[in-house]
Amino acid sequence: MQAKIPADTGKLIIHDFIHLRPLAKNSHSFKHAMMFSIDPHLASDTMTIGDLPLCRVLLMNDARFPWLILTPRKAGVRELFELSEDERAQLIEEVILAERVLSAMGPCDKLNIGTLGNIVPQLHIHVVARRKDDAAWPGPVWGFGKAEKYAKEAAETMLASLRSSLDIGHV
Amino acid sequence: MQAKIPADTGKLIIHDFIHLRPLAKNSHSFKHAMMFSIDPHLASDTMTIGDLPLCRVLLMNDARFPWLILTPRKAGVRELFELSEDERAQLIEEVILAERVLSAMGPCDKLNIGTLGNIVPQLHIHVVARRKDDAAWPGPVWGFGKAEKYAKEAAETMLASLRSSLDIGHV
Repeated sequence: MQAKIPADTGKLIIHDFIHLRPLAKNSHSFKHAMMFSIDPHLASDTMTIGDLPLCRVLLMNDARFPWLILTPRKAGVRELFELSEDERAQLIEEVILAERVLSAMGPCDKLNIGTLGNIVPQLHIHVVARRKDDAAWPGPVWGFGKAEKYAKEAAETMLASLRSSLDIGHV
Repeated sequence: MQAKIPADTGKLIIHDFIHLRPLAKNSHSFKHAMMFSIDPHLASDTMTIGDLPLCRVLLMNDARFPWLILTPRKAGVRELFELSEDERAQLIEEVILAERVLSAMGPCDKLNIGTLGNIVPQLHIHVVARRKDDAAWPGPVWGFGKAEKYAKEAAETMLASLRSSLDIGHV
């Protein structure tokens, strides 16, 4: 599927290479976005980085792994198939952006992507940079041991760096 | 302190870097397709269902979980970002098809999707139908306990049903 972007929306496109599509104010998506909030359990485990066109981007508060979480800003969505085809294409491009940002931040042997939702049903996608010497390798990070929270200064540095790399402001 | 690299070692550095990249002769997608095969480790854990336009679809040989694996039929691909944007959009639609087929087969409380590749680097996407009473709930299935292989007749019934639902023939 080739995304076709009208020339007059060019100024709204921040990240040309992922073909970001602004949501129309009268669209169904926009109405969902008005009611959107992050699940309290997810919020307590993470820090907010900012918003891409579809997803709110969160940093997992676990210094053991470079770990982003993308949450489509649509209330009530649990499964991928509840997004439209355009939203899914957008979602995977936002995942790719997260992959590129994480893998540029430091050593990375493999990227792990997952959407589970067994504990927090709100649709959210994990993007994790893995190293062969990380604590959980080669197992999954989900449910592995106990999170090691970032120190305050390290968290602020990490968030600033991620906002700059993702070219998004704080929400 | 910044390490000083003598100018005459430049060629060696470039040479080493080139060695880390796929050879140019492998870069054409047709040739990728021609050379595609399922990693032996992945093959030994699964049964082949058939081919969708992008992916070979495998059934994980573990009767504990309804569990499909989608493997893009391109040799040498490890990460999502190595697919083109069109291929990624196709991939997510094939994931959606797998989700729909699995969730129509029986009780399903949540779909889990993941691509890890820490053990088998070949890009492959897990699509698993989870139930609140399954063995691993609410944890991930990856690395959980020991697979319980399908009995021969159950496997044949399952494969025939999946080929029919996915509308694909055996390869």
